[in-house]
Amino acid sequence: MARWQPDAPGRLAAAALDLFEERGYENTTVIEIAERAGLTKSTFFRYFPDKREVLFGRGALTGLLVDGIASAPPEAGPLDTVAHALDTLGRTFFTADRREFSARRQAVLNANTELLEREALKRTELTTAMADALTRRGTPPPTARVAAKLGALVWEIAYDQWIATATDTETGADTDTDTGTGTGEGFGPLARRALTAVRATAAQ
Amino acid sequence: MARWQPDAPGRLAAAALDLFEERGYENTTVIEIAERAGLTKSTFFRYFPDKREVLFGRGALTGLLVDGIASAPPEAGPLDTVAHALDTLGRTFFTADRREFSARRQAVLNANTELLEREALKRTELTTAMADALTRRGTPPPTARVAAKLGALVWEIAYDQWIATATDTETGADTDTDTGTGTGEGFGPLARRALTAVRATAAQ
Repeated sequence: MARWQPDAPGRLAAAALDLFEERGYENTTVIEIAERAGLTKSTFFRYFPDKREVLFGRGALTGLLVDGIASAPPEAGPLDTVAHALDTLGRTFFTADRREFSARRQAVLNANTELLEREALKRTELTTAMADALTRRGTPPPTARVAAKLGALVWEIAYDQWIATATDTETGADTDTDTGTGTGEGFGPLARRALTAVRATAAQ
Repeated sequence: MARWQPDAPGRLAAAALDLFEERGYENTTVIEIAERAGLTKSTFFRYFPDKREVLFGRGALTGLLVDGIASAPPEAGPLDTVAHALDTLGRTFFTADRREFSARRQAVLNANTELLEREALKRTELTTAMADALTRRGTPPPTARVAAKLGALVWEIAYDQWIATATDTETGADTDTDTGTGTGEGFGPLARRALTAVRATAAQ
């Protein structure tokens, strides 16, 4: 598999992440991010409304998630439909070559309340998108809302575990794993396991 | 039951809510909030670090939640323990005389991204507090984290329904329900019902 080649928004995100790590989110300007990415300030603003948005993508994740829900087998129940969509994300978005970036990004977010708050809101928006996509498949709205929230929970658990593996790899002594792609379990299988744990806890 | 008599932080919150409704969150200053409450700016800052915090209380909810978890019957499973704590909140915090205030507060939050983000972060903090309280009761940490997140979901569903009843009452034509206290189901029973729905959806 070819290494992920970021386009302009991806280069801006990568440059921003480097700078936020080096000097902190507060001490980094949009101009510095653009310069580091070899782009201009006006290019930055073509893709992102402000500095705060640069680590939050441009809606690709929502599109993939909604498509994943729409393409689940028609007979799948609401929560299995969400699990199918999370499998899709594991193959298309949360791929091994993005794991290290995702782990570093989360560490930057965790260090900044403003970014954490933005993250929390983005997750709420993704949950609403999931519920709407389930409703379009015929799931009754109250069930769709609960299933989407359970799906968001499964996602969050799997995501935390997925990025934790990247951190282990970076700090590990095992030198044949230092490719930056991580050797831990993929996002999809982690999501399946998280779903099992959620079901077990709910049934207790 | 006596009508809820707000103390200084409660008066500041009530004054802030009035002003945010009248002229918007952005167009309201801390000085105006203090004046409307009949208090001084320095009193405001004794209780809240900034304007953004005034509708988020001062941690009482977290304390009640943690106590509710600690006081659940020892034999209760993790999710039933959380349900017990939500019952406690329904009796002590989300009481009928606070319903209208809570509904108005949520409408103000929903109209302002900055406040919504703060709300999302507060909910995350409450979820962590729940998980920690469950762990102190002997629930294994991974199960405690999942149970706390399921509990947060139950809470959110029940809360949305609880405040929706207040709105219905305000706009309803039935004049003998205009006491401002609402006549809908209490928070505790709504939480029990939401837990049943979450369990059913998880099992599907």
